[in-house]
Amino acid sequence: MEHKLLLLTKDNDRYRQLLASCHLPNIQILDDNPKNIFETDIWLAEPSLAAPLLPHASSLKWMQSTFAGVDALVKPRQRRDYDLTNVRGIFGPLMSEYLFGYLLAYQREHGKYKNQQAKKVWQPGSYKTLQGQNLLLLGTGSIAKHIAQTAKHFGMHVTGINRGAKPTKGFDEVDTLANLSRHLPKADAVASILPSTPETRGALNQHSLSLLKKEVVLFNLGRGDVLDLDALYIQLVQNQQQQAILDVFNQEPLPSDHPIWSLDNVVITPHIAAPSFPEQVIEIFSQNYHKWIKGEELHHRVHFERGY
Amino acid sequence: MEHKLLLLTKDNDRYRQLLASCHLPNIQILDDNPKNIFETDIWLAEPSLAAPLLPHASSLKWMQSTFAGVDALVKPRQRRDYDLTNVRGIFGPLMSEYLFGYLLAYQREHGKYKNQQAKKVWQPGSYKTLQGQNLLLLGTGSIAKHIAQTAKHFGMHVTGINRGAKPTKGFDEVDTLANLSRHLPKADAVASILPSTPETRGALNQHSLSLLKKEVVLFNLGRGDVLDLDALYIQLVQNQQQQAILDVFNQEPLPSDHPIWSLDNVVITPHIAAPSFPEQVIEIFSQNYHKWIKGEELHHRVHFERGY
Repeated sequence: MEHKLLLLTKDNDRYRQLLASCHLPNIQILDDNPKNIFETDIWLAEPSLAAPLLPHASSLKWMQSTFAGVDALVKPRQRRDYDLTNVRGIFGPLMSEYLFGYLLAYQREHGKYKNQQAKKVWQPGSYKTLQGQNLLLLGTGSIAKHIAQTAKHFGMHVTGINRGAKPTKGFDEVDTLANLSRHLPKADAVASILPSTPETRGALNQHSLSLLKKEVVLFNLGRGDVLDLDALYIQLVQNQQQQAILDVFNQEPLPSDHPIWSLDNVVITPHIAAPSFPEQVIEIFSQNYHKWIKGEELHHRVHFERGY
Repeated sequence: MEHKLLLLTKDNDRYRQLLASCHLPNIQILDDNPKNIFETDIWLAEPSLAAPLLPHASSLKWMQSTFAGVDALVKPRQRRDYDLTNVRGIFGPLMSEYLFGYLLAYQREHGKYKNQQAKKVWQPGSYKTLQGQNLLLLGTGSIAKHIAQTAKHFGMHVTGINRGAKPTKGFDEVDTLANLSRHLPKADAVASILPSTPETRGALNQHSLSLLKKEVVLFNLGRGDVLDLDALYIQLVQNQQQQAILDVFNQEPLPSDHPIWSLDNVVITPHIAAPSFPEQVIEIFSQNYHKWIKGEELHHRVHFERGY
């Protein structure tokens, strides 16, 4: 039986091109005609584009998400009668570049030296080093593991937060989200790479934010709703030596009237910390497709109940 | 016999304080009275402050430099009748923070996203990753080794340049300075950590700079005179997609009328990539002092002929 594939991405042409060069057996890649929503048993899709079409996907058997974040597809009353896989294991190096790029830019005062250069001023100053600083990572999955490894290389002490406080290679210590408040006051840098689940939503709220160090650098790189953005705004207005680097938001694009855009102690980037490169997504899709036609267990399967 | 120590640094008070807590035996730390130049057999000194006083240092037996760069002390007609040691092994992590902070800020386009934030514009774009890029390191000493290790962690290919092209752990390949022109056209990032010696001076001149890739990032972190700054200025005016990050200069402070201050594709910092922290210098000095009084071989001895 021939399988039929629907593409639901902002990069369909690129994906079509890459798939053509893979020569996958027994698969027809359909065009973007809306009627193909009913016909296709396999979707290669961005979660937010796929979610509203799910009720009409009468032939859908397997969806490969092109993103890591699948919360648009695992809400309580949504369909769970198909196999959902996402992409993992490719974001660690990119996230690490993002996090350490901004952390080093802040600690090594790129802004100050840029201002001095504009005035042709030669003025060395004291500064901080990452060596000996504490990094608190919310999440201990493959991305967090990669970040932890980079942090150890830079001489940092790394604490991880996960479900069962299970010891994880590469972390100096691990604890649960329930104990977050014990670790926040010690951290020089905090980064959330948590997925969006009922347990993680709002983990960084007014109370937990109030426990942060006076000169902390806070990153949100996982999902927007883990962080209460309005609480953070108030926190940062009142604590101008704290710094936030935000790449994900509850509402994206971040509305242009949100006052956090204008704070000097905030960096806002448009969800670019670790994009999915189509080449990497297609590699995962191809491997999974070969497993799928042989009836083998798929890689990176999403557990609907757990939410990731 | 009691030894007498002279301090010649911009941080004498801090050094005095740290030395007091070391309780070194048989040593008297003299005050900053100029007559002590004649009396003291041990100097803990910044090379540029010590150099003009050398002809008067009639009792000098050993000088511990507080810096890595000692070129002010190893010029052809200068005294070589004393032991000179410098500080090493402490700069790798700091240099690595500096280099990767600026490299990531450039490759991950911090400037572009800062401008977008100022206009409240949400516009993701394509970007580069360090993974798979080529880093060319001029130098393979302890600092370069540490940088190479960081680069490998970020997935880069690392080529080192040293005297004899001797294979060095942590480098994918190693070649000599004479073969530099073979490697420049392939490098996405080039960093000089070379000391100033007759062989290295002007290694980055008009000819070698002309071989750089169209979108290269060039770092000078070692000594200023390895690079022909005026040639670089012309090169960067003509190649605006090339980027230079400069921390060391032939003349420091860099004169405020040098036109390179104003180029958009140049970052200038005031020799702050890897300062000597007094705590680390004193640790090296104390170890060497104990060796000195026992007549043992000192750590980090400078070879006057070689120049480092």
